[in-house]
Amino acid sequence: MNVTEFDAVKFVDKIQMKNGRIKDVYLVACGGSLIDLYSSFYFVNRESTSMTAEWIPSKEFVLTPPKRLDSHSLVFICSHGGNTKETVEAADTALKAGAFTVTYTHDAASKCADEKYHSIIYTWVDETLQKDKPMCITYSILNELIHRQEPEYELYEGMKDGIIKCDQIIRSAVKKFQNKAWNFAEHYYNAPFLYIMSSGASYAQSYGFAICSLQEMQWIDCGYLNSAEYFHGPFEVTDKDHIYILMASVGKTREIDLRVWKFLEKYAEKYEVIDAADCGMEAIDSRCVDYFNPPLFYEMSVLYRTAIQNKTGHPLDMRRYMGVVEY
Amino acid sequence: MNVTEFDAVKFVDKIQMKNGRIKDVYLVACGGSLIDLYSSFYFVNRESTSMTAEWIPSKEFVLTPPKRLDSHSLVFICSHGGNTKETVEAADTALKAGAFTVTYTHDAASKCADEKYHSIIYTWVDETLQKDKPMCITYSILNELIHRQEPEYELYEGMKDGIIKCDQIIRSAVKKFQNKAWNFAEHYYNAPFLYIMSSGASYAQSYGFAICSLQEMQWIDCGYLNSAEYFHGPFEVTDKDHIYILMASVGKTREIDLRVWKFLEKYAEKYEVIDAADCGMEAIDSRCVDYFNPPLFYEMSVLYRTAIQNKTGHPLDMRRYMGVVEY
Repeated sequence: MNVTEFDAVKFVDKIQMKNGRIKDVYLVACGGSLIDLYSSFYFVNRESTSMTAEWIPSKEFVLTPPKRLDSHSLVFICSHGGNTKETVEAADTALKAGAFTVTYTHDAASKCADEKYHSIIYTWVDETLQKDKPMCITYSILNELIHRQEPEYELYEGMKDGIIKCDQIIRSAVKKFQNKAWNFAEHYYNAPFLYIMSSGASYAQSYGFAICSLQEMQWIDCGYLNSAEYFHGPFEVTDKDHIYILMASVGKTREIDLRVWKFLEKYAEKYEVIDAADCGMEAIDSRCVDYFNPPLFYEMSVLYRTAIQNKTGHPLDMRRYMGVVEY
Repeated sequence: MNVTEFDAVKFVDKIQMKNGRIKDVYLVACGGSLIDLYSSFYFVNRESTSMTAEWIPSKEFVLTPPKRLDSHSLVFICSHGGNTKETVEAADTALKAGAFTVTYTHDAASKCADEKYHSIIYTWVDETLQKDKPMCITYSILNELIHRQEPEYELYEGMKDGIIKCDQIIRSAVKKFQNKAWNFAEHYYNAPFLYIMSSGASYAQSYGFAICSLQEMQWIDCGYLNSAEYFHGPFEVTDKDHIYILMASVGKTREIDLRVWKFLEKYAEKYEVIDAADCGMEAIDSRCVDYFNPPLFYEMSVLYRTAIQNKTGHPLDMRRYMGVVEY
C-alpha cells in the first residue's frame, strides 16, 4: 500500500478482520529504522491496557522469537531500503507465526514490499509530512487500534491532532534552531568524543543521533544515554571538558531532563541543550505531547549533523563498510 | 526476608495466594541494579506465554507508569543501598497500584527493606553464591511462576540446574581469565575511549561494563552497544585504532557476536574478546544457557575493572559526585 492512500481506519479494519483482538505489539528493525519505532513501543506500554509492546533488533527477533508470537500479535517491521537481510528474516518469522505483519519500506521494489506482507511504502523527501513517515503512521495505527479495543481510552483525538499538527511545529522549530546548530558545529565539529541524552519516549533519539548521525555519517565517536540513568554512574565522567548534547523533552518526563540540565550547568561547560519547550509544542494536547518530542528531535539531529558535515567536510553519505564491503 | 531463608516455592505460593495469576512483570531500578534485572526481562519475553515483561528505569516508571499496572502485575525493584530516591518512589507506585512488589536490597535497615514490600535482603560478599544474588533469585521466582502458570513450559529443571551450577563455572572462568585481563589493562588502561558489545540476554552487561565499571568507577569514557546493531551504523567508526571489548555469548544469539568478531578480526586490531565458549558453560542445558552468560559477564567486568584500577591507580570506590555533592 502506498502511503499517499494510507487510511488508518481502513488499515485497522483489516487488522481486526484478519486477526481479531491484538494482545502483543512487536516493533522490529535495525539501526535507524529501529529508532523510528521506539516511541510507539513506549506509547503502547504507557497508554494501552489491552496490549503490551516490545522493541527488538531484527536478529534477536529471528534467533529468539517471543513464545507469545501468534495470530494475536501485531508486528511492525521497518527497513528503509527494504532488503536488510535480518529484517526480511524477521518479517518472515512474524508471518510464519500468524502475526499481522506490517512492513515499512521506502522502496516499492524491495523484499519488504512483497505482497505477502501488509506493506506500507512511504516517501522520504523534504516535503514528506510527519504523518506520512513510519513514526507517525505507526502512531495512527496504534491510536486507532487502542481506541477500538479500549472504550476508556482518552488520547484518541489528541493523538490524531498531534500527528497532523507536529509537522508545521517541527518545520518552524528547525528554522529557529539553524543558527544554534551552526554555532554548535563551529565549536565542536572536531570533538574527540561526546555524550547525547534524552528521556522517556525520546530515549531512542539519543541512540539514533549517536549511532546514525555521528558514528555512521560522520565517523565521530560518541555515547548515548537515557537521561534517567545519568545520575547512576555516567555523571562521574562529567567535567568542564566533556561535551554533552541534552535533548530536553516536554511532557511527563521533562523533570528527568531538567535535573540533568541543572547538574550540567553547575559541573560542565561544553553542553548543548535542544529544548522542546522552545519549539511551539504547547499547541499539542499536553496529555500526549510526550510522543511528539521524538519526531522533533529526529529532525534536530538532521539539522545538527548537517551543520557538522559542513564544518568537517565529511559527506553524510560517505561509507567505508556499509554497502561497500562484505560482512 | 533474608536471602539465606529464600525459597522460591514458598515465595511463589505467596505471590499466587495474594495476587492470583500474573500477567505482567516489571523490572525497575537504576544503574547497576537495573542492569541486574535485564536478563530476566529477556527471559520472560522469550520463554513465557502467560506473561510479558518490561525493563524500566525507576523515574520513568514513576512519571509514566504503565496503564496495565495492577494486581496482576509482579514488580521487581532493586536498590543495592536500598534508599535510591526514585527507586523507593517506584516501589510505592507499584504498591499503590496493587502489584505484588518485590524489593531487593543489601541493607536490611534501608527503605527498600520496609515490611510493606515483599523485600529480599541479599548478601554481597566474595563468597555469595550466584543463586543468592538478585539476578538468579529473580530467575528462580520467574522460573517457578512460569512452571505453574504454563503446563507446557520445558525449561523448569534446566533453569534450576543452571542457577546452582553457574557459580562454580563462573569462579573457574574468572581464574582462567585473570592473566588475559591483566594483559588487556596493561595495553589499554589509559585508552581515551572504547566500545563494549554483547548480545541477547547479555546486552545490558555491555551497558553495565560501560556505565558502572568504566564511567563511574574509573572515569573512563566508553560506549556500549547491542551486537545486533553493530552493522547498522556503529561499525563505520571501526579502524585499527579503535578499541573494542566483545563479550561473546554462548547460546541462541552467539551467531550475532561471531559476525561482529569476524569483522573486528578483519578491520580492527585493538579488540578483546571475552568468549563464554571458553568458560565451561557446556555443563548447562543448552536450551537455557543464554541466561547464564549475564552473571558470567558481570563477574568478568569486575575482573577487568580491577585489573584496570591496578594500572590507573584510580580507586574503584572513588567518587566526585555520587554521595558527595547534592544533585
